[in-house]
Amino acid sequence: MKGKLFVLSGPSGVGKNTILNRVIAASDHVRYSVSATSRQSRPGEVDGSSYYFVTRERFEEMIAQDELLEYAEYVGNYYGTPLAPIREAMKNGFDVVMDVEVIGAKKIKARVPDAVLVFVAASSMDAVRQRLIARGDVSPEAMEERLKRAVWECSQAEDYDYIVLNDDVEQAVRELRAIMVAEKCKTVERIHLLKEEF
Amino acid sequence: MKGKLFVLSGPSGVGKNTILNRVIAASDHVRYSVSATSRQSRPGEVDGSSYYFVTRERFEEMIAQDELLEYAEYVGNYYGTPLAPIREAMKNGFDVVMDVEVIGAKKIKARVPDAVLVFVAASSMDAVRQRLIARGDVSPEAMEERLKRAVWECSQAEDYDYIVLNDDVEQAVRELRAIMVAEKCKTVERIHLLKEEF
Repeated sequence: MKGKLFVLSGPSGVGKNTILNRVIAASDHVRYSVSATSRQSRPGEVDGSSYYFVTRERFEEMIAQDELLEYAEYVGNYYGTPLAPIREAMKNGFDVVMDVEVIGAKKIKARVPDAVLVFVAASSMDAVRQRLIARGDVSPEAMEERLKRAVWECSQAEDYDYIVLNDDVEQAVRELRAIMVAEKCKTVERIHLLKEEF
Repeated sequence: MKGKLFVLSGPSGVGKNTILNRVIAASDHVRYSVSATSRQSRPGEVDGSSYYFVTRERFEEMIAQDELLEYAEYVGNYYGTPLAPIREAMKNGFDVVMDVEVIGAKKIKARVPDAVLVFVAASSMDAVRQRLIARGDVSPEAMEERLKRAVWECSQAEDYDYIVLNDDVEQAVRELRAIMVAEKCKTVERIHLLKEEF
């Protein structure tokens, strides 16, 4: 059976990475899709794990050769999703999870229609604000910018297949894992098993 | 939030009751929909728990007054699904699970379009045969009849939303629970939470 692609989006500070790390740690058949970027690596970041760090020239070559499922330019740097590692993992039966902002997620859905889009939200904007403050690396202006962006992102949630609420991380992890199991139980994924047998 | 209706079908002997009992025992917000029947109760059966046992006259009155979500006559006895207890449980936030054969399940889907249909199958017909033999209450002729019926039922699985494979009961219970959680995470169920907040 082929793996499936699960695309997570949600406001900065909503806890997507925590959820993804927990789900990956709890399963031996889930892989994280590493993004490529042309930005400089920061201390502690590992090539091939945090990101694939490539030159601007190499990134533009990847664009030209259609090696990316989606890409975007942000504050002068490219960010994108290399297709080949995802294809390879899915072929080998792994589910692939990734964290992509809203516009990228929609591009992916257009190219991979059976990708499952999951929007991670908090039931109050205040919880998101608190998490951003706790991180401590955001200026008040950047914070307001992110909160405004969060409101816009939430307005796009309608185009997603599922909404996971991260008010409680245990609950959010349980929900994402349930979605991943349920998607594999859909009739379209399994009807061939009955047809072979009967 | 309103509860949802989950309708299970699948061949006799595939283990639907075991799965349902386990799922109900594991959750405090799941209720079993008890069927009504005009047949005599058997030793050990409890009115209101195994079935609602009613007279043939009362059953026909329930039909006439549209009190049933679906009904059928089988070997001279009526069997049907009373609507009122389901509505009441769902209004109080309970998910409702039920075990209905294929034709009844399709009638329910036509009347309650957001009911979730789950087909329980085994990946081999032989497993179903073994379970029927283990029960020991079925003659060889009745067995062949049931197996023929099982093949027909499996040919109807295409109209279901999900297929749960009961080769391993733990796995099947996990799958049904995942489906129930995932269905509550669907965007259509939750988008209002984001709209209220933002």
